[in-house]
Order: sequence, then C-alpha cells, then structure tokens
Amino acid sequence: MMSSGLLIVISGPSGVGKNTVINNLFNLRSQLKYSISATTRKPRPNEIDGQHYFFLTETEFQNRIKNGDFLEWAKVYEYYYGTPRQYVQNLLQAGHDVVLDIDVQGGKQIKRSMPEAVLIFLAPPSMTELKNRLRGRNTESETELTKRIRYIETEFESIPFYDYLVINREIDLTCELIECIIQAEKSKVKRIEPNLVKKILNS
Amino acid sequence: MMSSGLLIVISGPSGVGKNTVINNLFNLRSQLKYSISATTRKPRPNEIDGQHYFFLTETEFQNRIKNGDFLEWAKVYEYYYGTPRQYVQNLLQAGHDVVLDIDVQGGKQIKRSMPEAVLIFLAPPSMTELKNRLRGRNTESETELTKRIRYIETEFESIPFYDYLVINREIDLTCELIECIIQAEKSKVKRIEPNLVKKILNS
Repeated sequence: MMSSGLLIVISGPSGVGKNTVINNLFNLRSQLKYSISATTRKPRPNEIDGQHYFFLTETEFQNRIKNGDFLEWAKVYEYYYGTPRQYVQNLLQAGHDVVLDIDVQGGKQIKRSMPEAVLIFLAPPSMTELKNRLRGRNTESETELTKRIRYIETEFESIPFYDYLVINREIDLTCELIECIIQAEKSKVKRIEPNLVKKILNS
Repeated sequence: MMSSGLLIVISGPSGVGKNTVINNLFNLRSQLKYSISATTRKPRPNEIDGQHYFFLTETEFQNRIKNGDFLEWAKVYEYYYGTPRQYVQNLLQAGHDVVLDIDVQGGKQIKRSMPEAVLIFLAPPSMTELKNRLRGRNTESETELTKRIRYIETEFESIPFYDYLVINREIDLTCELIECIIQAEKSKVKRIEPNLVKKILNS
C-alpha cells in the first residue's frame, strides 16, 4: 500500500516571492502537484478547462458549495474561486503531495476542513524589504501601495493559525527548508501507514 | 533575544545504530549538546564527574527525585540514572539544542515533564536486519538474543508516544532526515519567538 500524500498550503503577502518559491519546489520534486482551482470567471483565450482552472457557471459553483464540494472557497469581487475537494483527495490518495497557493482566509478554511494539512506562512525578512520588492514591480501608485501594506499587516494576524513560519531570506534556503518540512511531516508518527510498524516487526 | 533550543529525545532498540547516528549528528552540528546523566553507580577509573556523569549518592539522588529535579529517571538493577532538569534547561536557554539518548520509558517521562520536547524513534528497516546486526556484535548467546528481541518488540509498542519515526536504512540519509526534523521544528509557529512577527512588521 502506498501511503497518501501531504496537502501543503503556502500563503504569504504579495511581494514575498511565493511564486518563485513554489516554482522552484516543483522543479525540485516531481512528486509535487499543484491544485487546480474552480472559478466562475470566464476563461481567457489561452486558458484550458481542467488545466488552468475548472470553469463553472455560478449555479454550478453554488450547488457545489451547498454539497460541501470545496475544501475552501471565496468570492473575490464578482467571481467565485474554490479548491475542489474530490480533485485534491484523488491526488493525495495517488500518493502525490499537493500544493495549494491560497490566501490566509483560504488557509484557515483548509485547516478546518482538513486538519491534517500542513500550513506554511511565507514572510519577508522585513517590511522595508517587502516594500522595496513591491515598489520594484512598479505597478502600483504610492496610495495603492500604502493600502496594500495595511492589508498585509492584517494577513500577519493569521500566522497563529499556521503550522510553520518560513522567512524568505534567500530562495534556495527557503526551498530547502520547505523540503525539510515536507520530509519531517512525512516522518511523523501520526502520519505513518498503520501497518508499517507491524511490517518491520514481521520482516 | 536568542530563542531557546530544542530538546531532542532519540530512542531506539539496541543494534539500530543509534550511537553512530548521534555521533554523526554531533559532527554535523556544533550547536548540539549531549545531556549528561546523573547516576548513583560508582565512577570508573577514566570517568570524570560532570563530564561523563554527575555522580551522586543514593540519598542525594532520592532527594532530587522528591524535589522534581529530574526530567526522567529510572532504577536499572541497583543503580539510579536520571536527566537533571536544571542542567538541561540551562543549555536550552543558552540556545543549544540538547540530545537525550534514552529508552522508551524515559522518552514517555520526558513527554510528560516537557511536552515541547521532540521525540524521535529510530527503527531498523526490518527485524532480520536488526538480528543480523546484533549477531554481528558477537557478544550474546542465542538465548540472550531471543530475550533481547522479545524486549525490542515491546519497545515498538511505545512508538505512538513518539513524534517521529525514522527508519535507519542508510546513516547519511538518517542524519539528514533528523537534521530536517530539527530545522522544521524550529520553524513551527508555536515555537517562534513571540516578538518575531512584530519585529518583521516594524522593520
């Protein structure tokens, strides 16, 4: 019997370098799978259903909410976004580790619906560095930036709901540490295959 | 402020390679400290008090038991052995990670007296391999070996009290995994310095 995979939630403020970290993790570990979200927004020309998103109508989405088909969901402006429970569970049962890149509200929902998930909060070394990174993007006015920083400060209030706090000082070290967290979690007694000890004793 | 160190308990059946693993860990990590036990047995000619053991009289030892001065203790044949609480706490507060090499009874006591300790059970890949290793030592008769194996089987029953199960297939991989467990544990939100998040926000 193959033991089932880990569900890994990675959250963190914009500008922290989350996408780079996640992309590097995928390059390191072939066993890792990215979860595909469901959404009610229309597909963009290059987007494929079941690859970039599961595209649903609003009625379909609301029915699935009622049926408890999402591990977490949210309405952002006029569109719904959610993590399909069955899709994730199939990947986990096939032995894959699944990464969810979601915000702190989603992370808290996951902790409730799947307490065995591993929640990692990615933080910057300092707010000064985060502001510099956001300014470096050059996509926002100073007013928008101030608003974003205020929002980021509220995101930090959710850290106590997370299992791990990883400070992204240097991308390689951050990925190594997340790799370690995954390996350590897989060695937890509460996660080991129930028959493993018996197997050792009988072999 | 320096955050305090981790207390790491490593247990495992004789023949599993625990000493080799622990010695390798010490070579890898200078920050790691080995806890010194207290005992009522007489020092051997080459043994130094406070370096190999803290040598105590039976009265001293029993008084310390009454005062709750031991994180764990046991009487093995006619002698007492114990882990001095204050000595370990001083090392932890100085920021060292402390390794305790104790049996499963001691491990369970530690979990009660210091729930924040990290308990690692080191297991062999199979009993066949363990028996071969024990036979390779050539120090026991087959009768003694059978008795020892029976005892080892009861040790396995304590695995549910441990946090991690590490299977010692290959010494380097085992040490890497234990290193990972230490790094992961240090990143746990419940262990981070209370002011760390505030520090990031204000810097």
